[in-house]
Amino acid sequence: MAGVKLLGFWASPFSHRVIWALKLKGVSYEYIEEDLSNKSQLLIHNNPADKQIPVLIHGDKAVAESLVILEYIDETWPHNPLLPKGAYERATARFWIKFAVEKGATFYAFYNSNTGEEQEKATKETVEVLKIIEEEALGDEKFFGGEDIGLLDLVLGWFAHWFDIIEELVGVKVLDASKLPRLHAWTENFKEVPVIKENLPDRSKLLAYFKHKYFAHLPSLDN
Amino acid sequence: MAGVKLLGFWASPFSHRVIWALKLKGVSYEYIEEDLSNKSQLLIHNNPADKQIPVLIHGDKAVAESLVILEYIDETWPHNPLLPKGAYERATARFWIKFAVEKGATFYAFYNSNTGEEQEKATKETVEVLKIIEEEALGDEKFFGGEDIGLLDLVLGWFAHWFDIIEELVGVKVLDASKLPRLHAWTENFKEVPVIKENLPDRSKLLAYFKHKYFAHLPSLDN
Repeated sequence: MAGVKLLGFWASPFSHRVIWALKLKGVSYEYIEEDLSNKSQLLIHNNPADKQIPVLIHGDKAVAESLVILEYIDETWPHNPLLPKGAYERATARFWIKFAVEKGATFYAFYNSNTGEEQEKATKETVEVLKIIEEEALGDEKFFGGEDIGLLDLVLGWFAHWFDIIEELVGVKVLDASKLPRLHAWTENFKEVPVIKENLPDRSKLLAYFKHKYFAHLPSLDN
Repeated sequence: MAGVKLLGFWASPFSHRVIWALKLKGVSYEYIEEDLSNKSQLLIHNNPADKQIPVLIHGDKAVAESLVILEYIDETWPHNPLLPKGAYERATARFWIKFAVEKGATFYAFYNSNTGEEQEKATKETVEVLKIIEEEALGDEKFFGGEDIGLLDLVLGWFAHWFDIIEELVGVKVLDASKLPRLHAWTENFKEVPVIKENLPDRSKLLAYFKHKYFAHLPSLDN
C-alpha cells in the first residue's frame, strides 16, 4: 500500500477535518507539521497553485484543499463511508457544505467585530446562519450524518471546538443551549466521538495562539 | 422515470452549466425561467436556505447550487461521465473547480475596476490567475477533461462566452491568443462543441443586459 503523508498545521480546523477522516477510516499516515510563515519545499512542490495546507500525499500523488481531500479519502477508502450512498443524500450534504463555506464572510465579520452596532449586526447575522443550519440541515438528528458522523459533521467540526474560542475572544456567546439548543447538543455529541475527542488541539494553546495571531493570521490557517 | 425541471435564469452562467450537463447526458427536462427580482414560490419552496437559482427538481427531490447539481447529475445519470473515474483525477478536477471559485473575488474586482492604477492591478491579478489555470490545469490538452469536455470545462465555461462581454464593458482584453494562447484556444474549442454552441445565450442580448445591470446585478445571477 502506498504511504500516506499529511502536511498540516496544528491550529488549523482544515487540517483537523482531514485528520479526523483518516482516523475514522483507520488509514495510517505520517503527519508533517508546516511552518506557515516559512513554508516547506515539500508543500510548495505538492501544491504549487496556492501553497496552502492541508495537502495529502498518497504515494506519488498529492491532493490539496480540505474538502477535496475529504472526498478523495472517501473514494479511496470506501469503508466507513463519510458521504451517504444515495445521490440525493450526497447532494444534500454537499449543499450544506457549500452553504457553510459561502457564509465564511459572516463568521469572519463576527470574529473581527469590535463593539457596538457593528458587533450587534455581525452577531445577529451569525445567529441567523447558525439557525438555518440547525433547523434545515441538522433538524432532530444526533449528527448531520444521522446516527453516525459524516462528511458534513467533519466540515462543521470547527463549530464544536474553535468557535467557542472565537466567542471568548470576541466576548459574545452565540452557540449556547438557550439560543441554539440542537446545534449546541450536536457540538457536545461531536466532541464525545472518540476519534474527535482524541484529536483536538489543546484549548488553552489554541486560545493563546488566536489571542495573539487572530486578526493577522486567520487567513493563513489555510484550507 | 421521474420528471426533471430546471429553475434558471437566461443570463446566468450557473444555469448554463446545468443546461449543458443535462444536454450532454441526454436528459430531457422542463426549463422554467425565474424572475430574479420577484422569485417564484416554486424556487423559494425548493431552495429555502438561500433562494438562489439554479435548482434542479427531480421527481419530488430538489437540488440547489450549480456545482452540487453537476455532481448529482453525474451520479444519477452515469453515462457520458463528467468527472473522470479515478479518485486522483476526480480530486484534481475538484481542486481546480475550488480554485476557480475562490478566485471569484479577483474576477469580480476586474469587472468592477475603473481606470488607472486600480484597473492595472485588477487586470494583472486576473491574468495571473488565468495563467495558473492555463499552465497547471489545462496544459496541452484540448479540454480540461482531456479529449472530451468534462465537469471542469462546464464550470469554467463562462470564460468562453461571458468573460469576453465583461472585457468589452471594462475595455480591457485579457483572454486573447497572444497573452493566453492555450486558454484562448480552449474557449474556441469549447464553443465548437455542438451542445455548447446550441445552448449559449445571445451575445448582444447578454451585452445589453450586463451593460445596464452589471454592477448592481452580478451577484443576483445566483449560483
